[in-house]
Amino acid sequence: MYDVNAIRADFPILSREVNGKPLVYLDNGASAQKPQVVIDAITRAYSQEYANVHRGLHFLSNLATDNYEGVRAKIARFLNAKSEDEIVFNSGTTEGINMVAYSWAMPNMKAGDEIILSVMEHHANIVPWHFLRERMGVVLKWVDVDSTGALDPQAVLDAITDKTKLIAVTHMSNVLGTKVDVKSICTGAREKGVAVLVDGSQAAVHLPVDVQDIGADFYAITGHKLYGPSGSGAIHIKPERFAEMRPFIGGGDMIREVAKDGVIYNDAPMKFEAGTPGIVQMIGLGVAVDYMMGHGMDAIAAHEDSLRDYAVAKLNGLNWVQVQGTTPDKGAIFSFTIDGAAHAHDISTILDKRGVAVRAGQHCTGPLMEHMGLNATCRASFGMYNTTDEVDVWLDALELAHELFA
Amino acid sequence: MYDVNAIRADFPILSREVNGKPLVYLDNGASAQKPQVVIDAITRAYSQEYANVHRGLHFLSNLATDNYEGVRAKIARFLNAKSEDEIVFNSGTTEGINMVAYSWAMPNMKAGDEIILSVMEHHANIVPWHFLRERMGVVLKWVDVDSTGALDPQAVLDAITDKTKLIAVTHMSNVLGTKVDVKSICTGAREKGVAVLVDGSQAAVHLPVDVQDIGADFYAITGHKLYGPSGSGAIHIKPERFAEMRPFIGGGDMIREVAKDGVIYNDAPMKFEAGTPGIVQMIGLGVAVDYMMGHGMDAIAAHEDSLRDYAVAKLNGLNWVQVQGTTPDKGAIFSFTIDGAAHAHDISTILDKRGVAVRAGQHCTGPLMEHMGLNATCRASFGMYNTTDEVDVWLDALELAHELFA
Repeated sequence: MYDVNAIRADFPILSREVNGKPLVYLDNGASAQKPQVVIDAITRAYSQEYANVHRGLHFLSNLATDNYEGVRAKIARFLNAKSEDEIVFNSGTTEGINMVAYSWAMPNMKAGDEIILSVMEHHANIVPWHFLRERMGVVLKWVDVDSTGALDPQAVLDAITDKTKLIAVTHMSNVLGTKVDVKSICTGAREKGVAVLVDGSQAAVHLPVDVQDIGADFYAITGHKLYGPSGSGAIHIKPERFAEMRPFIGGGDMIREVAKDGVIYNDAPMKFEAGTPGIVQMIGLGVAVDYMMGHGMDAIAAHEDSLRDYAVAKLNGLNWVQVQGTTPDKGAIFSFTIDGAAHAHDISTILDKRGVAVRAGQHCTGPLMEHMGLNATCRASFGMYNTTDEVDVWLDALELAHELFA
Repeated sequence: MYDVNAIRADFPILSREVNGKPLVYLDNGASAQKPQVVIDAITRAYSQEYANVHRGLHFLSNLATDNYEGVRAKIARFLNAKSEDEIVFNSGTTEGINMVAYSWAMPNMKAGDEIILSVMEHHANIVPWHFLRERMGVVLKWVDVDSTGALDPQAVLDAITDKTKLIAVTHMSNVLGTKVDVKSICTGAREKGVAVLVDGSQAAVHLPVDVQDIGADFYAITGHKLYGPSGSGAIHIKPERFAEMRPFIGGGDMIREVAKDGVIYNDAPMKFEAGTPGIVQMIGLGVAVDYMMGHGMDAIAAHEDSLRDYAVAKLNGLNWVQVQGTTPDKGAIFSFTIDGAAHAHDISTILDKRGVAVRAGQHCTGPLMEHMGLNATCRASFGMYNTTDEVDVWLDALELAHELFA
């Protein structure tokens, strides 16, 4: 039984007020709040169990190493990876995708080779590919979404040519909430020898993710959206791709031997993790994914589906609100504008006065904004702790904004 | 007045026991412990003040942005930088040096160009340059240290040829404790148009650092050694070098506009900070450098000098201990071996039984180990909270190890 009030009580920030009103936190697409168990794990790690990892032999170093390395199995379980050795730790999706760009794409692509992107990718899954365009002459090919925000997997596969080396696609749009059938994309791409990187930043927060079922070559997640610490994250990589990758960040831990005239690199995943890592952040992320799995990803998804359905039903009655992204099975993410000249930033400011935290702007999706013909939207994005009451508070505040600007 | 006992009381982990003995933490060279104010700042940030930064307009996002961006001025003050705009945030020195390698060195160097390194560099300041050697044919030139572990700045400058583009050198050896006259190196290099990167990972912990006085083009520090959170750090970059650098990590925040066919990048320092950053880690690092500055970097250095002198005097009486690095003004870092066949790892295990945490191994300095003709050393490295009593406990435990192996 999913007890959202019990879950809310686990998140200390949710009981605070903002501008004299109870906080209604609907900015989960940008970053999620943290449960007390995660905060406690961080405190314990620094107060009682801290040392650098891997290279020490003393008690605290062994303890910190066990705590830190234990997270790899948790992440593997969270993503249903075959082995924890397929999990590379990092500071989040941005670093994960850049690693694929530098480690895999740069040495395996040449001028004229093509990367297929959907038009709704986040800048984190666009800018690294622009680097390849600017520096190497790689060609970026864009696949549009339809008027509901849906991405046809066949349209992605149809864009493949004999120059295509990579498809980089989100599993869930951070603006539209659209879920993408990444499994079909991966299956079709594999038949043509094209690698697929899936940006799981949003999807892994809201859906059960099974990387074996999906079959992506690279599946990136980011900890701060997963109710974990800032600066934590991971990427799942298929073992056969590891062999095609050169190191990205150089330093300690990713090497076996360093001499004046050469380096012998470590085996994956260590080969791709350099220097003192985000020790305590990763320990916190392990607690966060345990927390999510404890409640059950299916149950979280069902709860958020019910929030979505509740919000959609109410929004359908408001003919002065335009919602971007209307696929029926979308995630509980609502990008919207309202009638009248009100800029998205003005709307968010009014909502903020009522304690409602939403985001306004381009949401790091320049090409999608251009595709939609919009400069900016407001976005209300829900998480495991949000309630239908909060949908009401949001829409009541929106009604107020509408009256003010009408 | 420097009150080491009051300082110790600020660090919760220092009152714990290890293996039934009071913890004597002498592994500060690997990572330092955290004062309660840093832990409290992290807790407060996650419990009451958390949101993503920069792109929000709601109360919590503005608050988190203020807290996070406020750290830039603190780091600038800590390093005596001319402007906070010269400070790029990152996850630590490893990322900082790799950024210089990818952003500055790769686009500005070609096959046959030379990088000068000291033989005592940490792998974080070696492996990124091996990448340039492997991938571009850049030549690495090594400057030895003398038998005391001193590095002659003139020897570094004498190694410059018309092919030299960069000198990458530590400000303080993590193995020998040697302080390097980086100011003389920077002054001489500037006259010849050669850039200098200084690895300040150790020095910034133990010495007042004045980047304007030193004059390095790049000065890298790492937060987890500065009594701050894991995964925090920064690099100071001279404004004239920013203009020569291309972006390293691509994603949100480092761009002004992203379209399908191109990107307009942000100005420095934002141009070099992509994606959701280590928000809370950086807030913690700000508190950590405030904590250090509150006690005074001169006072911390004087305290550690007194620990060094006390230890040196006692070590001089132990003819069965060999200490690597004997410059008189070295930092309080002691790499040692002892007579008898005892491997460094065995020594550290015995010390651990007495609660004394030291590191054993190569300390991420393969070339230095080769230069010294050693496979491994033990290392006792001191910090602002260590005491002469702890020197005694360490050396008593070492005496025991010596007896066991004799």
